[in-house]
Amino acid sequence: MKKLTVNLGTRSYPIHIGQQLLDNGELLTRHIRGRQVMLVSNDTVAPLYLQRVRQQLEEFNTAAVILPDGEQYKNLDTLNTIFTALLEHRFNRDCTLIALGGGVVGDITGFAAACYQRGVAFLQIPTTLLAQVDSSVGGKTGVNHPLGKNMIGAFHQPGCVVIDTDTLDTLDDRQLSAGLAEVVKYGLIRDAEFFNWLEINIAALMARDKQALEYAIERSCSIKAEIVAADERESGQRALLNLGHTFGHAIETGTGYGNWLHGEAVATGMLMAADLSARHGWISTEMVQRTEQLLRQARLPIKAPQEIDETRFMALMAVDKKAVDSGLRLVLLKAIGDAFVSGDFSADLLGETLRSAA
Amino acid sequence: MKKLTVNLGTRSYPIHIGQQLLDNGELLTRHIRGRQVMLVSNDTVAPLYLQRVRQQLEEFNTAAVILPDGEQYKNLDTLNTIFTALLEHRFNRDCTLIALGGGVVGDITGFAAACYQRGVAFLQIPTTLLAQVDSSVGGKTGVNHPLGKNMIGAFHQPGCVVIDTDTLDTLDDRQLSAGLAEVVKYGLIRDAEFFNWLEINIAALMARDKQALEYAIERSCSIKAEIVAADERESGQRALLNLGHTFGHAIETGTGYGNWLHGEAVATGMLMAADLSARHGWISTEMVQRTEQLLRQARLPIKAPQEIDETRFMALMAVDKKAVDSGLRLVLLKAIGDAFVSGDFSADLLGETLRSAA
Repeated sequence: MKKLTVNLGTRSYPIHIGQQLLDNGELLTRHIRGRQVMLVSNDTVAPLYLQRVRQQLEEFNTAAVILPDGEQYKNLDTLNTIFTALLEHRFNRDCTLIALGGGVVGDITGFAAACYQRGVAFLQIPTTLLAQVDSSVGGKTGVNHPLGKNMIGAFHQPGCVVIDTDTLDTLDDRQLSAGLAEVVKYGLIRDAEFFNWLEINIAALMARDKQALEYAIERSCSIKAEIVAADERESGQRALLNLGHTFGHAIETGTGYGNWLHGEAVATGMLMAADLSARHGWISTEMVQRTEQLLRQARLPIKAPQEIDETRFMALMAVDKKAVDSGLRLVLLKAIGDAFVSGDFSADLLGETLRSAA
Repeated sequence: MKKLTVNLGTRSYPIHIGQQLLDNGELLTRHIRGRQVMLVSNDTVAPLYLQRVRQQLEEFNTAAVILPDGEQYKNLDTLNTIFTALLEHRFNRDCTLIALGGGVVGDITGFAAACYQRGVAFLQIPTTLLAQVDSSVGGKTGVNHPLGKNMIGAFHQPGCVVIDTDTLDTLDDRQLSAGLAEVVKYGLIRDAEFFNWLEINIAALMARDKQALEYAIERSCSIKAEIVAADERESGQRALLNLGHTFGHAIETGTGYGNWLHGEAVATGMLMAADLSARHGWISTEMVQRTEQLLRQARLPIKAPQEIDETRFMALMAVDKKAVDSGLRLVLLKAIGDAFVSGDFSADLLGETLRSAA
């Protein structure tokens, strides 16, 4: 088992990564506040793992709420079902929520914990690769609005993150690929060596080699922990983690939540960011091709949906929360392993990228 | 004009109290972040004051959203209409919300600001006495759930509070009385001298004497600011501000939001807390009578609704967020001007208080 720490002063917390961790209740119980524990999962993950986790918590007063699976349910209505469950079970301010599932379950549970009685504790047990390498770490929580993704939320750090890599055995292929998109992102923004490692090991990762997956998760979490520790509330470098996300959110919103997986949209968005960077001459077209090749091998989409034309893309991106005043800012690349945030790009070249993306 | 400060380190903010402050735009503009300003008001207050405030903000890109007036609309659906307005106007992370109205508008606007894009700035212009002396100060924001009042929310401090006492000219009598309930509360929990002052000046306050009102508001805000500065997130003495609120919330929830005004429920709740304290011998029955007399003179209800019997009271109070584990804790009185929080009271005597309350 590997242990990393997200260093945030009094809000610091550990990330445990390894096999069979779901049966190691102690990793959770030492971080539980109070006696009341609400497990939040979805109808795909709960039948597989809920009982096992609950068994580890016999000394607590536990209850569970099972959400429908899918990004289209990441909204205020679903959030409210968690509040209703908490209130029906008379949970007080001194309780703990545990998110058992993918990114949607983690984001919505974290936001419920941020708002229930103005803030209670929560723990993360991410069961998808995407949640393990990205959304479970860093305290960004929230839900979507029909007019924009993750527009409603809070910063609320978990008490711990427990990543059992065995849960990836039950993940479907499309979800595994979606998670790899975020893994590739860490290489692109911060770590050229890791990007090279991914190019060499992509076949092992796709074959679900446990050692390869564990290393990829550890490296990803480690980069994310470092960035979050330096900039918890995204006033600076944390924005680098949004590489591909402004384009990606436009794809997700434009196609309706749940049709494209978040990781799929991010993959296409990263390639668009690389393309735009190359059009400015900041990176070579060879680097764009390497990125495209790696995403292809991870069976990720590399083309934006036909139905989103340039005008629609621009409208969708304008509402994205990374927009400051009317100036759109994007995460772009200076090299593989070196990203930066800029509003200083050519609108004409952006148009070219948008027109050639589909 | 009087100026108080809520001392919270980097989140400190001023409270301005005086006449004609709505026409003093500078009080607001120096605290506005970004160029985009969303005014949030309700359909009672907006026709009276919205245009005047908006006039002061001509240099900004302003928009407005008007909520229906009433506690029954303090819910997630109404909250969502604010998010929709913000997104339709393409407001970004660097924007400011201004709450213009009573406690409901302030609480819901503050919560919208806490959650929109994970947190934007907001300012408070409270226009009811209750909001001026209580809810606009201290950063508690939130909405109700059908199963409990203020169960969903956040701590989010405003950038400033502007209290124009002229807005009380348009307040109806029932709302004025409701505000006086919270004013009486400050005397009961912290300041016997102020309680005496209220006994002497209650007729002037009911006659809307501006000087008397200004003093009562200043003294109330000053006590609240002191308590909030010492305990922002209610881990200790801030709970004293909930005198009468556990009983009061039970009345509000039990009768359906909007039937009893919050201040009315708090008045009856405070009298119940005084009654329970006297039954323990902690205060004299004379003190209970003085409290009852003052509340009567403020035309506040002193009897709980008949339809909430002892059993229903207990069930409603058990879900109140001041309950820790299964032990109910209440704010009780040692003297006028000296409140304390305790779980150590007689269940039998509580039963007597509940049975004799209606």
